[in-house]
Amino acid sequence: MKVSIIGASGYAGEELLRLLHRHPKAEIVHITSEHYAGTSISARYPHLTHIYENPLESMEKIHLIAAGSDVLFIALPHGHAMQIAAQLEGYPLRIFDLGADYRFADVSVYETWYHAVHTDPQADRVYGLPELYRERIRTAHIIGNAGCYTTASILALAPLVRAHLIQPDSIWINAVSGVSGAGRTAKESTHFPELYDSFTAYGAVSHRHTPEIEQALSEQYGATITVSFTPHLAPMSRGILVTCYAALLDGVDGDAVDSVFPHAYGDEYFIRLRGRGAYPATKYVRGTNYCDIAWHIDPRTHRVIVFAAIDNLVKGAAGQAIQNMNIAFGLDERMGLDLVPMYP
Amino acid sequence: MKVSIIGASGYAGEELLRLLHRHPKAEIVHITSEHYAGTSISARYPHLTHIYENPLESMEKIHLIAAGSDVLFIALPHGHAMQIAAQLEGYPLRIFDLGADYRFADVSVYETWYHAVHTDPQADRVYGLPELYRERIRTAHIIGNAGCYTTASILALAPLVRAHLIQPDSIWINAVSGVSGAGRTAKESTHFPELYDSFTAYGAVSHRHTPEIEQALSEQYGATITVSFTPHLAPMSRGILVTCYAALLDGVDGDAVDSVFPHAYGDEYFIRLRGRGAYPATKYVRGTNYCDIAWHIDPRTHRVIVFAAIDNLVKGAAGQAIQNMNIAFGLDERMGLDLVPMYP
Amino acid sequence: MKVSIIGASGYAGEELLRLLHRHPKAEIVHITSEHYAGTSISARYPHLTHIYENPLESMEKIHLIAAGSDVLFIALPHGHAMQIAAQLEGYPLRIFDLGADYRFADVSVYETWYHAVHTDPQADRVYGLPELYRERIRTAHIIGNAGCYTTASILALAPLVRAHLIQPDSIWINAVSGVSGAGRTAKESTHFPELYDSFTAYGAVSHRHTPEIEQALSEQYGATITVSFTPHLAPMSRGILVTCYAALLDGVDGDAVDSVFPHAYGDEYFIRLRGRGAYPATKYVRGTNYCDIAWHIDPRTHRVIVFAAIDNLVKGAAGQAIQNMNIAFGLDERMGLDLVPMYP
Amino acid sequence: MKVSIIGASGYAGEELLRLLHRHPKAEIVHITSEHYAGTSISARYPHLTHIYENPLESMEKIHLIAAGSDVLFIALPHGHAMQIAAQLEGYPLRIFDLGADYRFADVSVYETWYHAVHTDPQADRVYGLPELYRERIRTAHIIGNAGCYTTASILALAPLVRAHLIQPDSIWINAVSGVSGAGRTAKESTHFPELYDSFTAYGAVSHRHTPEIEQALSEQYGATITVSFTPHLAPMSRGILVTCYAALLDGVDGDAVDSVFPHAYGDEYFIRLRGRGAYPATKYVRGTNYCDIAWHIDPRTHRVIVFAAIDNLVKGAAGQAIQNMNIAFGLDERMGLDLVPMYP
Repeated sequence: MKVSIIGASGYAGEELLRLLHRHPKAEIVHITSEHYAGTSISARYPHLTHIYENPLESMEKIHLIAAGSDVLFIALPHGHAMQIAAQLEGYPLRIFDLGADYRFADVSVYETWYHAVHTDPQADRVYGLPELYRERIRTAHIIGNAGCYTTASILALAPLVRAHLIQPDSIWINAVSGVSGAGRTAKESTHFPELYDSFTAYGAVSHRHTPEIEQALSEQYGATITVSFTPHLAPMSRGILVTCYAALLDGVDGDAVDSVFPHAYGDEYFIRLRGRGAYPATKYVRGTNYCDIAWHIDPRTHRVIVFAAIDNLVKGAAGQAIQNMNIAFGLDERMGLDLVPMYP
Repeated sequence: MKVSIIGASGYAGEELLRLLHRHPKAEIVHITSEHYAGTSISARYPHLTHIYENPLESMEKIHLIAAGSDVLFIALPHGHAMQIAAQLEGYPLRIFDLGADYRFADVSVYETWYHAVHTDPQADRVYGLPELYRERIRTAHIIGNAGCYTTASILALAPLVRAHLIQPDSIWINAVSGVSGAGRTAKESTHFPELYDSFTAYGAVSHRHTPEIEQALSEQYGATITVSFTPHLAPMSRGILVTCYAALLDGVDGDAVDSVFPHAYGDEYFIRLRGRGAYPATKYVRGTNYCDIAWHIDPRTHRVIVFAAIDNLVKGAAGQAIQNMNIAFGLDERMGLDLVPMYP
Repeated sequence: MKVSIIGASGYAGEELLRLLHRHPKAEIVHITSEHYAGTSISARYPHLTHIYENPLESMEKIHLIAAGSDVLFIALPHGHAMQIAAQLEGYPLRIFDLGADYRFADVSVYETWYHAVHTDPQADRVYGLPELYRERIRTAHIIGNAGCYTTASILALAPLVRAHLIQPDSIWINAVSGVSGAGRTAKESTHFPELYDSFTAYGAVSHRHTPEIEQALSEQYGATITVSFTPHLAPMSRGILVTCYAALLDGVDGDAVDSVFPHAYGDEYFIRLRGRGAYPATKYVRGTNYCDIAWHIDPRTHRVIVFAAIDNLVKGAAGQAIQNMNIAFGLDERMGLDLVPMYP
Repeated sequence: MKVSIIGASGYAGEELLRLLHRHPKAEIVHITSEHYAGTSISARYPHLTHIYENPLESMEKIHLIAAGSDVLFIALPHGHAMQIAAQLEGYPLRIFDLGADYRFADVSVYETWYHAVHTDPQADRVYGLPELYRERIRTAHIIGNAGCYTTASILALAPLVRAHLIQPDSIWINAVSGVSGAGRTAKESTHFPELYDSFTAYGAVSHRHTPEIEQALSEQYGATITVSFTPHLAPMSRGILVTCYAALLDGVDGDAVDSVFPHAYGDEYFIRLRGRGAYPATKYVRGTNYCDIAWHIDPRTHRVIVFAAIDNLVKGAAGQAIQNMNIAFGLDERMGLDLVPMYP
């Protein structure tokens, strides 16, 4: 498969390069960056010296790129992918968008949260979270890769919601991310000394991953579910841990919770159920496509807490996109993704 | 005032030394460490070279220490303070215990959560959280200094609970601490490479700060309140951020929330209300006795989120103990504590 | 003393505010920032909320500022101070420049290394390193505060050079700094994820602190000394450690080295000699004006290694400027600077 | 090849597992840990869950292990490997010792620096640094894998020494390591809060990697070379950067230096020459077997500075051991080691 990456100079694009390097079926043909076009990717990322010396190209040649590619990964801020994809109808390629443009079944949700008009509402698309939407991913033209926080949040809560074990209006999601989730663009808020030895929140009650989570959980539940999602920034580079809080429905006990997770994810290679009482750590999944999940029951309050840890750049971005690509092309879902976490 | 510190070789004891150095009324007379007795504190903490060269003594001479002291800080694991205090009845000194022994009005709560018999249940004691218990702190013999997580959690939630703005059974507390909260004893779980670039939780549904929070909030509310408290460890040294979640009662709007915090804390020097929509960061209070508080209203879910940030070793331990001491001795509460956060 | 700070929105300016808060003789009257003029310093630095709410002003009013000030700290990039100071001749104030403009006795050195014309070569100025130039600091109009790397490097090597114990052409200085040394301006090179879990060098054979070190060491030695200076960036916020390498002259033994340091610095409050075989750590001086020094003798190679640790923002910038101010105004040199390191 | 790891519970052993997972010819048959024997490796390292569930065994069965293995990696503190290897003479296996026992041609050097008697001085062994000793590695029974600091130091300096470009008595090596180099055993000195935001040195003039470096450089030079080696600890997990200082011989210019590195390493896959004026960073090699090298010429002092960066657990330990194994077994040297650095 000939693979091109639109927006290769950011962290997600660069992570695609890292992971695709070991994919036996993928060959990188084009990588683009409007800002760095004309230079080598290794000039932008010296760690890629001798590994990738490909030139960064401009999207101006998007038709040429599309004509030579079977797979197009788009790793750009929202709003760009729908413009690119609209231009490429008719090309026999599959598009995997790491941004938000194609994540919503109802584009009015997108328009409300992103304050933008959706210009490609009829696209043949699917929400790119393989554990829930594998079948549709096989055939959809565009896969709107699930977001980082959302992947962890949905995977943590979907089994409980689907089985109707928790009160649907009782969900709180507390999320913590490493700073790579903010991208590579330098800002004062992500300047090293500002964040070192500091912990804070941001985006409370307004973060755009909220409607993605609600969309998926509502589908699982069979009715609308509203959640509160509160992201935080930890002084580290990689990883997301979500701590999900909910009240158990009357009559639901710990055994019911214990059984619902294996039932939901028994065969899922990338989900590691660590069981009741365990504590996933972001370091346990670092550099890999795993999502580690564990849960705790609070008998005093008849509540449940679910932890899920992922690497925001892998299962939260590039790894999941490759997993989606493998599914879409009928390959073994694990191809190129049989990674061991880098520890310590 | 002659001040002695029982247990000066841990982080809380050492932080007392740092802060008392600038206290105009306090003179350090004895510092103890059973493990390091006979050596200088500067051998254990080279950063104190030339500043404190006091010898570490053994508690074996506790009566001699007590006879020469007006103030006794006890910075030992729970279980020790009640043994020490019981021996010292009759000495004209005030005891400020940084551990848990004297934090509970109902010692059966202590016994349940700490799995230990309380041997000094009749002591004249008060819960050492000045913003709520200032009057009793003036006169009590023993001040059971509030815990680190609990200080932040109670200060964040007390105004809402007291004013009956939130559903009392809807509270979740998500807490994050730097690693200094685990003390100075080396363990594999706090070995540098294990925690670096990692984020995880611990102590879910079982952490011993839970009943402290419930005790204070129940008092404020006028009836029993049960909460869920979930601590996490961030890869940093100092600081606690609590993110408190609750459902607003019907009819309560954002203005009511906005007014309840200034009403509760208007004159409190150490509480900095950052207002609705702000984000306290642990770095903004680092090294100081401040507790920064901000809140957010989620109109979609009719919920409230309250953030509170403290330095776990200052407002969460040594600083609060000194604040309590100042109150107990009729001094200006801010004496020695007019600190500027160290930034960046 | 009425104190104004030109350039208060950077880390050095903000650190002056932190330290001056406890100075009993200093009163802040004006603080400036061209970029943030019109806003409160606490808007730029939320950690200063309730502590400093002073407005940031523009330098356009420099004559008004000068007329109302006894002390002017200038914390701007090089090139600005010489323009400001030239305008203020005749005002009865003392100027403490934290930049490089007034550090060189021979302005041609400045012009060579900074690629700029010096426009105020006749100023009554002194190199602001109190341990070596205390007497001149008492009277000079302008104190050119020594740089951060240079302070540590010169203090480490001056005793050996002055006593002619080392080969003058054998000196290498390996320096490591935390990222706050790069200032507050966001750049990709200081973006959090770029530096986290990474260590690298920069500025080899070309760093502008080199001629400062050579100027001071040559003066101590009595003839020209040339050194190699190699700075590195460690993934931390504060602190500088210099590791200085030199060959001992024939006939010089460890005892001679052991005695030269106390002889040089016996009464210096801010220099803590940790002795032969010790290891200063940046954390042992964090937040303070101390410079910790230790040395090692290598009998196999007849060489000496000297370590010196400082806080780059205190002894390397704001603290040293206040120390210079205290000297210039005949105050106790330690006034406002009797700080205890923040640990851990 | 059937591979066993003696001492799999430390960081080097665990890193062998990470790397061997993708080695097409290696199969893990036994892993040992005296302390954790009887448990699964995933209990000790939860990040290995579902990837390695192998039981940790005891060395008591070393003969059984040896009989079933083609390759034995020993990742234990020095002193153990020579006891194990002595027991296994006659088994048709190759031993790759990650400790120091087999690193010295002259065992008296080992005995002097390690204060221990060498009990296996006649072993058929080679110093396991492939870029210098590849031929002997093909046939030696025991490969004494080069140390972490030493690998970076020797690779940085060998070309200059071999070509007689630098004064042989002018070498200083300044080395900086992440904390994983200290192993996994918890100590107060490596407790998270102690090291966070701190930088310090250790082991000056006495570190045991010194004689390893001298042995290799002396061989390259053709006469005895003595160096000073000073290690430091940076607050990060992985990576080593060495900054090597030396005086150029008269008549040697920058061009000579520029040409000697490509001449020495032109075909070496794992050495990436970044050229004159570049700055290797530990993050550019993180997780991989690369050694990045760059150099700077100081015309003012006629000196040279060479930087080399490696991952201490890969090229400094497990990766190099696998590289040695590939050579010893006639495989492609890169097998299992075609890794992309994990960034950021």
